[in-house]
Amino acid sequence: MTNKASLLRELFKTKKIIRIVGAHDGLGAKLIERHGFDGVWASGFEISTSHGVPDADILSMSQHLDAARMINRATVLPVLCDCDAGFGNVNNVIHMVEEYEASGMAGIVIEDKKFPKVNSFVNGRQELLPIQEFVQKIKAAKSAQTSVDFMVFARIESLIAGQGMDEALRRADAYELAGADGIVIHSKSRTPDEVYSFVEKWQGHLPIVVIPTTYFSVTADELAAHGFKMAIYANHGIRAAIRAMDDVMRSIAEQGTTSAVEPSIAPLQEAFDLQGIDIMIKNEKRFAE
Amino acid sequence: MTNKASLLRELFKTKKIIRIVGAHDGLGAKLIERHGFDGVWASGFEISTSHGVPDADILSMSQHLDAARMINRATVLPVLCDCDAGFGNVNNVIHMVEEYEASGMAGIVIEDKKFPKVNSFVNGRQELLPIQEFVQKIKAAKSAQTSVDFMVFARIESLIAGQGMDEALRRADAYELAGADGIVIHSKSRTPDEVYSFVEKWQGHLPIVVIPTTYFSVTADELAAHGFKMAIYANHGIRAAIRAMDDVMRSIAEQGTTSAVEPSIAPLQEAFDLQGIDIMIKNEKRFAE
Amino acid sequence: MTNKASLLRELFKTKKIIRIVGAHDGLGAKLIERHGFDGVWASGFEISTSHGVPDADILSMSQHLDAARMINRATVLPVLCDCDAGFGNVNNVIHMVEEYEASGMAGIVIEDKKFPKVNSFVNGRQELLPIQEFVQKIKAAKSAQTSVDFMVFARIESLIAGQGMDEALRRADAYELAGADGIVIHSKSRTPDEVYSFVEKWQGHLPIVVIPTTYFSVTADELAAHGFKMAIYANHGIRAAIRAMDDVMRSIAEQGTTSAVEPSIAPLQEAFDLQGIDIMIKNEKRFAE
Amino acid sequence: MTNKASLLRELFKTKKIIRIVGAHDGLGAKLIERHGFDGVWASGFEISTSHGVPDADILSMSQHLDAARMINRATVLPVLCDCDAGFGNVNNVIHMVEEYEASGMAGIVIEDKKFPKVNSFVNGRQELLPIQEFVQKIKAAKSAQTSVDFMVFARIESLIAGQGMDEALRRADAYELAGADGIVIHSKSRTPDEVYSFVEKWQGHLPIVVIPTTYFSVTADELAAHGFKMAIYANHGIRAAIRAMDDVMRSIAEQGTTSAVEPSIAPLQEAFDLQGIDIMIKNEKRFAE
Repeated sequence: MTNKASLLRELFKTKKIIRIVGAHDGLGAKLIERHGFDGVWASGFEISTSHGVPDADILSMSQHLDAARMINRATVLPVLCDCDAGFGNVNNVIHMVEEYEASGMAGIVIEDKKFPKVNSFVNGRQELLPIQEFVQKIKAAKSAQTSVDFMVFARIESLIAGQGMDEALRRADAYELAGADGIVIHSKSRTPDEVYSFVEKWQGHLPIVVIPTTYFSVTADELAAHGFKMAIYANHGIRAAIRAMDDVMRSIAEQGTTSAVEPSIAPLQEAFDLQGIDIMIKNEKRFAE
Repeated sequence: MTNKASLLRELFKTKKIIRIVGAHDGLGAKLIERHGFDGVWASGFEISTSHGVPDADILSMSQHLDAARMINRATVLPVLCDCDAGFGNVNNVIHMVEEYEASGMAGIVIEDKKFPKVNSFVNGRQELLPIQEFVQKIKAAKSAQTSVDFMVFARIESLIAGQGMDEALRRADAYELAGADGIVIHSKSRTPDEVYSFVEKWQGHLPIVVIPTTYFSVTADELAAHGFKMAIYANHGIRAAIRAMDDVMRSIAEQGTTSAVEPSIAPLQEAFDLQGIDIMIKNEKRFAE
Repeated sequence: MTNKASLLRELFKTKKIIRIVGAHDGLGAKLIERHGFDGVWASGFEISTSHGVPDADILSMSQHLDAARMINRATVLPVLCDCDAGFGNVNNVIHMVEEYEASGMAGIVIEDKKFPKVNSFVNGRQELLPIQEFVQKIKAAKSAQTSVDFMVFARIESLIAGQGMDEALRRADAYELAGADGIVIHSKSRTPDEVYSFVEKWQGHLPIVVIPTTYFSVTADELAAHGFKMAIYANHGIRAAIRAMDDVMRSIAEQGTTSAVEPSIAPLQEAFDLQGIDIMIKNEKRFAE
Repeated sequence: MTNKASLLRELFKTKKIIRIVGAHDGLGAKLIERHGFDGVWASGFEISTSHGVPDADILSMSQHLDAARMINRATVLPVLCDCDAGFGNVNNVIHMVEEYEASGMAGIVIEDKKFPKVNSFVNGRQELLPIQEFVQKIKAAKSAQTSVDFMVFARIESLIAGQGMDEALRRADAYELAGADGIVIHSKSRTPDEVYSFVEKWQGHLPIVVIPTTYFSVTADELAAHGFKMAIYANHGIRAAIRAMDDVMRSIAEQGTTSAVEPSIAPLQEAFDLQGIDIMIKNEKRFAE
């Protein structure tokens, strides 16, 4: 059985740009795998939305981990896990890495905001942790893993928090020195210029990851051309689900029947296929002769 | 705080026909509430699909309960829970009712199939439990609840299993006598004629519930006119989500960008609204003066 | 079904001094109930020890809640829950109260230390939250409950942190004003003089609770005579279990048989009784005639 | 990181007789490790007792797995997991093996009783599964594992169910043929003669495991001399804890103070040591320079 962390490491060596997509459950993971993506992003935003609670460290580490396990179990793809601000201090980070690695995750991303954090696209409180404290978290995380392959990414929120490019670059330097396996540079700009600027200016050697949510026009090829090694499409699955479920609920409520929505929803058989019910029935027969 | 079981009881007294919709997480519950439905169906099919495992008692009682809790927490609507075949024998049923009632659920539905069951729309093994054994489960369930309002529905799978109408009627009689609070008559016919026939022939007095998945053209008004008291739209939310997420994954995979899908997915702000992030921020300010 | 929060409220009205004991699982709760105590303390120290992790906010809120649910399910006694520092900021406190109340707990205790906290008996970092921030947490907690009876206790750690009596009294005043239902005054002194001094000097009207771990010679009667309303024996169950399990493991390891320990361990039948297996078998027969 | 399944395999090659002890939580695992045992038995009896529910498949697979994860996380020892009757049919067994192996367990034991089972020491219903059906479960289990090392043991309940030695031997043959990695022969006799008889008569080549609960006078050396490869001390930890906690509760209830029990319970510091709080504080300092 190939280790998922080594699968992810391998992708960083061989692929021009890695594309992973956000999920909040096993179903999402299966659809992401179906369409040939390289991995799954266990998205804190999606998991929180699924629970119906704010993406602001309201869900606990263990609830995030439970969702990540459900995702990981459902796919052969490596799963990279959104671990917010690390759920506390260095002790919490160490415990978290032990749990995530033991659960077979490929890696984690922690962001340099104070715990409890608020989603980066929410206006208002976006408080950064002092550099040195986040450096400690990276060191603690790297010290806690037992395999060489498990990956720890440092997510820089300086641009989100309005702290400017210099601060972002300074943090990237510190996080590389601390032993991070990659940098996620987050931006809420409408264009990729801000992250382009980062990648051009930064002198470090770590792979750089982006989350093109607000600057959605950019293509993966363009990002690759600028030197990015991974793009995370972090929240589109659940946003698609919201619109579709909302439309279906409205139609049923108004029409008093599901007739109108039948053509636009998946047939039962597709759900059964995604559940793997054919494999189950085959097994049932195989072990019943 | 009004008890959810009494809310559901009240609906059976006052509404012509109650309409509830299937969910597998808090998000689904919030969308169902948004569109004015009467309650939420904690759907075993949806929960299994979300986990990416067969709807065949692969998930445990406690996993179903965890999902039901997430659903219940997210909505003010009463939640009726799909409890498959009761997860074992009478002892399991008793434990299950204790747990579901203590967790604030409005009621449960158990079906008269053998454990482990397979989804009713899957061809092949659809084995019924002997009447007397299921009668025991109903009695056990009713004996285990501590409030008067908690509702226990008996779901008849005779028509699904090809056992015919007489068997279905015989079972309905027995289940009413055993103390069930309602009958779910399940059918995989393409038209509602089969369930119409049941409701016409049955002499019992319990409210009758249908799940119009295959005979989807029927309207709630028509069902009400035939005397049904509840319709469960059991699986349309996740089927909508599958189609939408599948389309979005394909587009991102092919286009290398999310540009094309942006118009058809919910904006981030809608997700934040469903998360209740505004209430959270308001609270944060309220308690920070 | 009587609400457990109202049971606890009632005890504060009728009992001279309430005695509750710490548990980490259902078994502990059953033994506490067996010996006539008034309630169960879902102890963070015990739950952490049971998991084998530091009592320092390493376990998450949801893990504490899962343990509390197991405890609550196993006993008819009201369960008061150790909620550490509230697991984050006011938003986390609000979410926590919603979850604990919905899960049937009688009340919670939050302490005025910074998150993540460390057990009060551990030397070193014992950092207090500024008064005003903890006042906000109390207000947030009280605003979040939906029933009138759910109780929120404020635990003062000033004496633990070496901040002195005046600070403790000032905090007690502020917490009473904020709406707390009771004050837990914590002390690591070898004698009860320190908490006696607190109770004599404080002018407030809330019931005062103590945790006589280090000043263990004091009796409940003496505490009652000094005006305390509740004593929490917070950790003695698991400490007894550690010593007993340790002795048994040593004996088996050394002797190569369990012969020597048989007289000093509970017979299987006592475990079955605590499991409630007789009730189960009675039910099984009752529903099988 | 050495795989725990390979650790357990190695023990079967190198040790005369392997001794493992039952636990229900992380604390038990740590005490078992402290005294030099070879592994931990994630005991269904202990886990059920801890929850305060009958050892009769009342707890679900996922609840057993959660306990096993807590145990596994707390120790470097390999963990062998009591998986009752496999929690359902072959599909449930397959799912179970996938989950247990992915969670890092060393192996599982399934018993040839019908689901839901009742603890073997409870009089009354002890129903065996037909041989052929249990053979299918073993085949299904072995087919589901992804590593070569994960171990699947078949537990024979013929002697428990009063079905006699011939039936036990016939089943052992069938289970060896089906691919089991070892045989657990269970007996409720007061002497080891019954299991001695089994080991003498059986012609198979698999390692044989015993659970000397009722024939407790036997020593590990004697068992080794008779050719057994593993002894499971399955329930002594929690039975020690019950007696000790019961004594302590009684004393506190009667004395109104914990004075009398202080000498016989573990000091706080021992609990902190078991929690690993020193390592945590060391880490905290290490990452805070």
